Amino acid sequence: MSDGRSPQADRGLTRRRLLLGGAVAGLGAAAAVGADAVIRAGADAERNPGDPAGGGADAATAAAVGLATEPFHGRHQAGIATTPQAHASFVGLELLPQTDRDGIRRLLSVLSDDAARLTQGRPALADSEPELAAVPARLTVTFGFGSELVRRVAPHAAPEWLRALPPFGIDRLEPDWSDGDLLLQIAADDPFTVAHAVRMLLKDARSATSVRWVQSGFRRAAGSVPDGTTMRNLFGQVDGTVNPRPGDADFDGLVWVGADGGWLQHGTGFVLRRIRMDLDRWDRLDRGGREQSVGRFLANGAPLTGTEEHDEPDFEARTAIGFPVIPEFSHLRRARSDDPRERIHRRAYNYDASPSGGGISDSGLLFASFQADVDRQFVPLQRRLDELDLLNEWTTPIGSAVFAIPPGAEEGGFVGETLFAASA
Amino acid sequence: MSDGRSPQADRGLTRRRLLLGGAVAGLGAAAAVGADAVIRAGADAERNPGDPAGGGADAATAAAVGLATEPFHGRHQAGIATTPQAHASFVGLELLPQTDRDGIRRLLSVLSDDAARLTQGRPALADSEPELAAVPARLTVTFGFGSELVRRVAPHAAPEWLRALPPFGIDRLEPDWSDGDLLLQIAADDPFTVAHAVRMLLKDARSATSVRWVQSGFRRAAGSVPDGTTMRNLFGQVDGTVNPRPGDADFDGLVWVGADGGWLQHGTGFVLRRIRMDLDRWDRLDRGGREQSVGRFLANGAPLTGTEEHDEPDFEARTAIGFPVIPEFSHLRRARSDDPRERIHRRAYNYDASPSGGGISDSGLLFASFQADVDRQFVPLQRRLDELDLLNEWTTPIGSAVFAIPPGAEEGGFVGETLFAASA
Repeated sequence: MSDGRSPQADRGLTRRRLLLGGAVAGLGAAAAVGADAVIRAGADAERNPGDPAGGGADAATAAAVGLATEPFHGRHQAGIATTPQAHASFVGLELLPQTDRDGIRRLLSVLSDDAARLTQGRPALADSEPELAAVPARLTVTFGFGSELVRRVAPHAAPEWLRALPPFGIDRLEPDWSDGDLLLQIAADDPFTVAHAVRMLLKDARSATSVRWVQSGFRRAAGSVPDGTTMRNLFGQVDGTVNPRPGDADFDGLVWVGADGGWLQHGTGFVLRRIRMDLDRWDRLDRGGREQSVGRFLANGAPLTGTEEHDEPDFEARTAIGFPVIPEFSHLRRARSDDPRERIHRRAYNYDASPSGGGISDSGLLFASFQADVDRQFVPLQRRLDELDLLNEWTTPIGSAVFAIPPGAEEGGFVGETLFAASA
Repeated sequence: MSDGRSPQADRGLTRRRLLLGGAVAGLGAAAAVGADAVIRAGADAERNPGDPAGGGADAATAAAVGLATEPFHGRHQAGIATTPQAHASFVGLELLPQTDRDGIRRLLSVLSDDAARLTQGRPALADSEPELAAVPARLTVTFGFGSELVRRVAPHAAPEWLRALPPFGIDRLEPDWSDGDLLLQIAADDPFTVAHAVRMLLKDARSATSVRWVQSGFRRAAGSVPDGTTMRNLFGQVDGTVNPRPGDADFDGLVWVGADGGWLQHGTGFVLRRIRMDLDRWDRLDRGGREQSVGRFLANGAPLTGTEEHDEPDFEARTAIGFPVIPEFSHLRRARSDDPRERIHRRAYNYDASPSGGGISDSGLLFASFQADVDRQFVPLQRRLDELDLLNEWTTPIGSAVFAIPPGAEEGGFVGETLFAASA
């Protein structure tokens, strides 16, 4: 084996000898073998990008979930108004000390190029496994900037709200799930697509950043429930009924930063909160208690004063014995504001990690919300919930991060270009 | 608020006072409110089990992935010959010291009942969130017994191979990913379905067991690639081409234990190996080197001597300069045996956990295989790979467990009944 020509004499060889000897020679010879077949196989994969095994038109139909794409370029970044995909990984990166303005520009250019390709089912430039990119599955990559990144590019360009949220009484924040200089929200209907995109982007980010956290979550699989079904969280609650949706009259005003936002115009603000849910203790609460704590029926998410999920709650209604039907301490009532500006666009994911230390679950919600102004929209809402929300008994925020989401990139441009223009 | 009737006086109250005071009174009143609506909502959910938001026939069509079911009862357990679902969690439980033969019987009865219901889209008996069970998404729950469980039920009934695998030179096993007394393999096409089933089963298992490990993995999403496409692993390799499949002439003989297996007849043996893959170092290898290490083209999985994935490899073929086209140290060659009995049925999943300690990935393969006799089928294969498989340079087994998979349960019976009969 040490010369690559004695196949029957292998068994006694140690791995060390193998790798220092014949194997390396063998690898060197790789270029000499099968070049023809490589080319043919590559062409086949090219013709059937959704079908690594090489199928035809029928195969493409059967792979509709995998072949679907979302645009990358545009006025707004994708992954915000995009119908939520089944899987998402949120990656929080820290800039290395030596990564300066030019380094950040190079980083964002490379990552934007990667994202532009991967989201369209094409391999990234340095992708050594191009076949893994052939299943875009509605992949989106959304970039967000922490205050430190903005400071290094344009010292005075950060919006006032771009900082850690004010402390809330319910918080038990862990640094390992908080903060960060650069956010990548990577979402797709296929978990493998997410894993590959995360890896490609981290490969290209590692010369300028280190990984602070990766948080992965899921919703229902594509095709698992009818389109438009409001997500349930792991408590079983219908979660996000009053979420402003793209196309709603007030969506654009609530989400997108206006003309006075400078480089952030057409961008938005992003809050990620990792909320641990104590499923074991929740189990001890009876169904009536659960519905009271939320203010909605578990069966279909209807408010306790209604019969259908989207019925308007009647906060004045009282029971025969004088209690409010929708309790004062219910999440539904506490999350409501009389100020129509105090609304946010939620795009949450569930998480379910391996339990440790004798528990039977490590589960919760990756609460993710987009809003034009974090201070005016998110913070007052969170204050109300912090002060009085019965759900706080079973939920604990253990991570928190705020990012500015720049506008989308034009074809040939990169995400964050407006920030560089702002400081030029 | 402390009497439930002064809604404007809430703000100053501490959470403690709230919970000890009016909130509890409020919860107690839950039964008095909205009972009508609860009943209507529940009936609605019943009519449209796949559509928690309450849709009609169109909605059911749009939810085909979610509504699909796999049978639970039968000669063999489901989850073995079943077409692999997109998501799986493998749960390793340890019996508590006091869990005796009767306790094990009760445990298996309850868990079998849970599984029989959940897999058919019906809530488990104690399910406090019945709506979450309404999306079976081809859920299967497969039970496996470690040697200690068998010993407590029927001291001399364990097959000889039911023990830890012999040590291999490449192993770097961590106890936290190894061994266990009771395996639950919980798989479905929807990640939320898996999470809910894991939770329900662990709730019902916790009086008799503790959780040793939970390992979650994924393949491509349902509808993402054409049916029958061989999985790729995170190295980008087409992985499992020669896997014996249900319907193949030799599948039954390789997988199912025969009449001489006693209580295990129609069952099988199961090996789970957690194999860390060093994606960062793999990246440094060029494409030719990768293909040599596997013995297959990356583009479509064809052997280096062929053009299509399922072409028979030609192990005699040599290059112009005399090297074997399929190298001696390649995974393809090392995994082959001349003995047709030395084959296994693989049903692997990828894992991609949050990286820690400065790395950019914690990824690998949950190698899962079914075979009638672990000692005769799995061990010799693994020995060959341990001795000489170039892939060992980039892969490290960090977990290992062996279980006996009993036959399936009849309607009204429970999985493991034959073991109790064996020792009666």
